[in-house]
Amino acid sequence: MNLPEKASKLDEADALRGKRAEFVLDEDDTVYLDGNSLGALPATVPTRMADVVAREWGRLRIRSWTESGWWTAPERIGDRIAPLVGAASGQVVVGDSTSVNIFKALVGAVRMADAERDEIVVDATTFPTDGYIAESAARMTGRRLVPVDPGQLRTALGPRTAAALVNHVDYRSGRLHDLPGLTAAAHAAGALVVWDLCHSAGALPVGLDAHGVDLAVGCTYKYLNGGPGSPAFLYVRRDLQAGFDSPLPGWNSHRDPFGMSPRYEAADGALRARVGTPDILSMLALEAALEVWDGVPIEAVRDKSLALTDFFLECVEAYLPAGRVESITPVPHTDRGSQVALRCADAGEVMGALIARGVVGDFRHPDVLRFGFTPLYVSFADAERAARVLAEVISSR
Amino acid sequence: MNLPEKASKLDEADALRGKRAEFVLDEDDTVYLDGNSLGALPATVPTRMADVVAREWGRLRIRSWTESGWWTAPERIGDRIAPLVGAASGQVVVGDSTSVNIFKALVGAVRMADAERDEIVVDATTFPTDGYIAESAARMTGRRLVPVDPGQLRTALGPRTAAALVNHVDYRSGRLHDLPGLTAAAHAAGALVVWDLCHSAGALPVGLDAHGVDLAVGCTYKYLNGGPGSPAFLYVRRDLQAGFDSPLPGWNSHRDPFGMSPRYEAADGALRARVGTPDILSMLALEAALEVWDGVPIEAVRDKSLALTDFFLECVEAYLPAGRVESITPVPHTDRGSQVALRCADAGEVMGALIARGVVGDFRHPDVLRFGFTPLYVSFADAERAARVLAEVISSR
Repeated sequence: MNLPEKASKLDEADALRGKRAEFVLDEDDTVYLDGNSLGALPATVPTRMADVVAREWGRLRIRSWTESGWWTAPERIGDRIAPLVGAASGQVVVGDSTSVNIFKALVGAVRMADAERDEIVVDATTFPTDGYIAESAARMTGRRLVPVDPGQLRTALGPRTAAALVNHVDYRSGRLHDLPGLTAAAHAAGALVVWDLCHSAGALPVGLDAHGVDLAVGCTYKYLNGGPGSPAFLYVRRDLQAGFDSPLPGWNSHRDPFGMSPRYEAADGALRARVGTPDILSMLALEAALEVWDGVPIEAVRDKSLALTDFFLECVEAYLPAGRVESITPVPHTDRGSQVALRCADAGEVMGALIARGVVGDFRHPDVLRFGFTPLYVSFADAERAARVLAEVISSR
Repeated sequence: MNLPEKASKLDEADALRGKRAEFVLDEDDTVYLDGNSLGALPATVPTRMADVVAREWGRLRIRSWTESGWWTAPERIGDRIAPLVGAASGQVVVGDSTSVNIFKALVGAVRMADAERDEIVVDATTFPTDGYIAESAARMTGRRLVPVDPGQLRTALGPRTAAALVNHVDYRSGRLHDLPGLTAAAHAAGALVVWDLCHSAGALPVGLDAHGVDLAVGCTYKYLNGGPGSPAFLYVRRDLQAGFDSPLPGWNSHRDPFGMSPRYEAADGALRARVGTPDILSMLALEAALEVWDGVPIEAVRDKSLALTDFFLECVEAYLPAGRVESITPVPHTDRGSQVALRCADAGEVMGALIARGVVGDFRHPDVLRFGFTPLYVSFADAERAARVLAEVISSR
């Protein structure tokens, strides 16, 4: 059986196959492997957004804050995301950007740690914003930032560690870090841990509650398909909520926000992590986008994700001349997220040529071709075509 | 001439009269005097949002970050707002909530002040979130928060003041504070000043550049009609930008954001105040909403605003039994924003009855009826009807 035939068989057997029709994808002849940067548009969103704009804003206006449920959207949508990351309800709130949430989470974590612990450990290969914000959090809480290679995290954790900030999946290589093991190691060292789930939420089981994670932050416009710049989410484990002391105590997190008291009193629960007025249009687009998850077990998503990346690597191996690309994505399933990253000469130009031929991935400086596999809508035929076109582009150079 | 006739004459002579048709307002029989809380829907927005969702997100997907100008939206929309607040281009950036921007601005201001200055002065009657965030900024920069009555601001400013945070218009009373005078007083004391323009941007001339304001923050969903929770804006005066040291140095504010360097280097210009990925849907709705300002001089808006609030107060005086309400909005034009606040027994119930009769204002705890006059779409006939219905409601109680 050749690879196109194998792709066809795999697609036929795919339990998630029907989900693709719930996205706006087949109007153009594109293989979209950049859903780990911006998820495709779920078909429910345009109609819902038209209603939000024309009726909720246009007709009900101010009344929508109560009558259309705008005010409670951050908690409500948080609860919709919660099961996808293994959290019981009441622990996730949506709003603000990932960067702002990392600041809240990390400062909050440091403030819950023993005062004599003076270090914040951060994954040195992290997505840059995590490191920049961690540096600001360290500066503003009087701690020292300790950037370490993810392989050195366990040894870096110790009696001086207040908190650690770690990426679940490395944005460049696609390496999946050991969330249960590192969380346990942080706790054994007496430290708190903040996980960045940007590249795992919606791609694989996270198990926040099961693994006793302290705080976590994630993006909603990648595997959760919330739309460009849709608000991020923040998880604060239930038993830590009463001690969560936000550096951004805006009026939306007040116990009685409409009491207009000059004295701040933090609300109970996850909504303590809210700040200002939520960006309703972006937030309700996300809520509509989350409908595609109805009835989808995240374990099925993980199974398909691994099958897709395995198959793509098989096709790359079969189609490409040896030595022209090098995969930097781990082979063991236990260490792999939902993307494949190939190191390649002239990667920027190669990605440009791929996009021109309808295969959309992205280029990461300086030499990485990144292909994201979003199991709700990427098919095995997509994977085969992507590898085939990549081989054509590489051979023609 | 009775008051309805006078309203009719005033409407006929209104230079901004044609603007009302650019909003979605006349489908229902409502007098909307809550545009200082959520501006009405500009008619340009629904079509633009449909295109953003279906074509820019749905079809172009990731390509829209460059091809649809998403990446540069924060600065581009900032430049669209700039003339409305008297700022030359390159000094205003849009993104994040008002609360988050107050944190950036106030911490940034304190860091630019002499290190021995250990106080942050804040308007004690401010909208609560300003005070809460100022308290966090003081705590995180090792300063002492000094809340004072706005009347005492001048005397509170001194050699210990690092920065002051002041509201341009008081959200409850509608009092307009003396921005030129207080800015000059802060500078004379060697301090920086951050102005909160939430209730003045789009309602009256602000003159940021002319008055040498240091930093300013404002809301876009009130008089700028950007939609529920649309992103706020931040002004950093050009000559201060190189020294602006953000407490939220997210990757969007990096000099080379796609270089993915682990080392933070702040970009030049207003975009140094950006943080994470902007909420594109909310942001582009705002951009479309700003089209209604084309060709509208802010001075004409101010003239109409004062005429509307004068006329509303005249109608209230004529229609209501003496002593049943008390205006807490200043009479002198120099001290008045674009709203009228009436103190009234049972204000919550009275506002409920008004809304039931199609006159939408809002209630501010504990005893204030607040009526916002948004000159682009509120008519003198609206003002007359609002006062008349208020008199009916009060008389029937």
